[in-house]
Amino acid sequence: APAAKIINGKLVAEQIREEVRVEVARMKDAIGVVPGLAVILVGSRRDSQTYVRNKKNACEAVGVKSYEVNLPEDCSEDEVIKHIETFNSDPSVHGILVQLPLPSHMNDENILNAVSIEKDVDGFHPLNIGRLAMQGRDPFFVPCTPKGCMELLHRYGVEIKGKRAVVIGRSNIVGMPAALLLQKANATVSIVHSKTKNPEEITRQADIVIAAVGVANLVRGSWIKPGAAIIDVGINTVDDPARPRGYRLVGDVCYEEASKVAGAITPVPGGVGPMTIAMLLSNTLESAKRIHKFE
Amino acid sequence: APAAKIINGKLVAEQIREEVRVEVARMKDAIGVVPGLAVILVGSRRDSQTYVRNKKNACEAVGVKSYEVNLPEDCSEDEVIKHIETFNSDPSVHGILVQLPLPSHMNDENILNAVSIEKDVDGFHPLNIGRLAMQGRDPFFVPCTPKGCMELLHRYGVEIKGKRAVVIGRSNIVGMPAALLLQKANATVSIVHSKTKNPEEITRQADIVIAAVGVANLVRGSWIKPGAAIIDVGINTVDDPARPRGYRLVGDVCYEEASKVAGAITPVPGGVGPMTIAMLLSNTLESAKRIHKFE
Ligand SMILES: NC(=O)C1=CN([C@@H]2O[C@H](COP(=O)(O)OP(=O)(O)OC[C@H]3O[C@@H](n4cnc5c(N)ncnc54)[C@H](OP(=O)(O)O)[C@@H]3O)[C@@H](O)[C@H]2O)C=CC1
Ligand SMILES: NC(=O)C1=CN([C@@H]2O[C@H](COP(=O)(O)OP(=O)(O)OC[C@H]3O[C@@H](n4cnc5c(N)ncnc54)[C@H](OP(=O)(O)O)[C@@H]3O)[C@@H](O)[C@H]2O)C=CC1
Repeated sequence: APAAKIINGKLVAEQIREEVRVEVARMKDAIGVVPGLAVILVGSRRDSQTYVRNKKNACEAVGVKSYEVNLPEDCSEDEVIKHIETFNSDPSVHGILVQLPLPSHMNDENILNAVSIEKDVDGFHPLNIGRLAMQGRDPFFVPCTPKGCMELLHRYGVEIKGKRAVVIGRSNIVGMPAALLLQKANATVSIVHSKTKNPEEITRQADIVIAAVGVANLVRGSWIKPGAAIIDVGINTVDDPARPRGYRLVGDVCYEEASKVAGAITPVPGGVGPMTIAMLLSNTLESAKRIHKFE
Repeated sequence: APAAKIINGKLVAEQIREEVRVEVARMKDAIGVVPGLAVILVGSRRDSQTYVRNKKNACEAVGVKSYEVNLPEDCSEDEVIKHIETFNSDPSVHGILVQLPLPSHMNDENILNAVSIEKDVDGFHPLNIGRLAMQGRDPFFVPCTPKGCMELLHRYGVEIKGKRAVVIGRSNIVGMPAALLLQKANATVSIVHSKTKNPEEITRQADIVIAAVGVANLVRGSWIKPGAAIIDVGINTVDDPARPRGYRLVGDVCYEEASKVAGAITPVPGGVGPMTIAMLLSNTLESAKRIHKFE
């Protein structure tokens, strides 16, 4: 069997960053506006700190201004919301992002709902999700990771309209919005989750699979229809004594098996991973353009 | 083959109306509050006038107070919105309903968004749809027709969790929310629409089918898995010279064929049809209870 085409997310993400950089410069030249992204980090989780630092660096590289607020683990919900409201009314901020997870004493819903819908570059507000689900409405922002999945399909010429698509996983931040996007693009979508009885059989019918589960190598070669396009969102660690850190990253799809059956597939790492931040930059630019009516 | 069990929506709707009537009386006795439903009708379409009259009569029969506003076809969007706002702040009104379709010079979105989310008993507000789509969130109101479909499945003991479900149609008012509800109830859901290439094959995998298409007799016996539960939302007219009016009503499912294969099926008329108004009464009661914190 011919090997699957590798969908190079790293490369596409670089292209998108470069496109954003050019547009940011053009906007600055034309109207003197620089897109701004505010990131709120509560507590001192190592992984969250890393994510926030990566986002700041990515902003810097394309000319987006970043603003950061660090709040202590034990601060109050009201304090977080006060900072959000300051950013809501700050005209130099076009996107606001609250790094998840929040400390357990806080109510995610209250906090995320405080972000102005015009600056919700993560696209997690229920009003935004509702518009994503509805025909004839458009969301203000498409959530970054699912938007990245769609962008990969588009840039690799994968036809979506009229195709069967299976999304494995239905989380608010990846699986569910990915299913809604595929459906808006006129795929026939099925959603597989932990209560699904025959995931293998259903997945094998799909021309397009998006896997966002968090279970290493769940999707085996036998789950895949020959020639299907596979987008693997999963980022899982498995022990590997041969690596200096003692582990390596794998996706939700067994790459070794799947790449022999699929028509196209994203690797992990280097597939969807790098797309998320690229889409965050793209959403922030889009927001600044919309707010300043710049085309 | 044994004939399918007939899901008697007329009977279930009567039961629900009776349940609502009892609760309305109990609330009135206990706290002196009578649930109120406001209906706004723009223009003078015959069918819309009939629907509004049916809703008013249904309210009366269970003790819900109804308020009606009739506006001329050529009134402005602002006028409609002004009436909505009056009802939003009227404490005797717990549900507000704008009869669709609106005249073509009006923007449905602007008007529906004006209805207070606490009184949106139709459940059409995008914020409400977003909450319906999200895990860990609950909608304020479940849209009436899809809620009626679920109620029929529940009252006839159809198991949903872990089952395959196919929804044919993806409109904002029926198909899409029906799919989200089945998914919240842990079915594995596929959505079939006009761009789907092999609807017959996909539908035949389903243990539960909800058809909301608007095409008479689209779903044939051969589309149905033996023993499946079939909910037919369609209301279509076909010529029938034998009837006094010259036509009769049929669903989206070919009842004659399907009832020989299915395990359970709703007839048209007398299936989903009567459930919609029953659910509207139930949503209005629920709203009054929530607003007055009455349990
Ligand atoms: N930038 C990136 O590349 C990103 C990568 N990720 C990665 O994507 C993966 C998914 O993340 P996220 O969506 O947040 O995860 P969640 O844990 O929120 O959701 C996982 C989903 O998978 C379903 N599921 C769990 N086990 C199974 C199973 N055995 N078979 C079928 N479905 C199953 C769950 O079903 P149920 O609803 O029934 O519980 C749930 O819907 C993770 O590996 C995460 O690290 C996430 C975000 C960004
Ligand atoms: N109380 C009740 O019982 C109610 C009954 N109804 C009835 O339900 C039916 C559907 O209503 P509504 O949802 O408002 O209708 P819409 O016209 O808004 O939506 C119809 C849906 O069916 C899809 N569709 C059209 N043709 C086909 C086809 N050949 N194969 C597969 N899918 C197809 C369309 O797909 P696409 O999106 O690709 O165009 C669309 O999603 C109607 O008969 C209506 O009268 C409606 C509301 C209440």
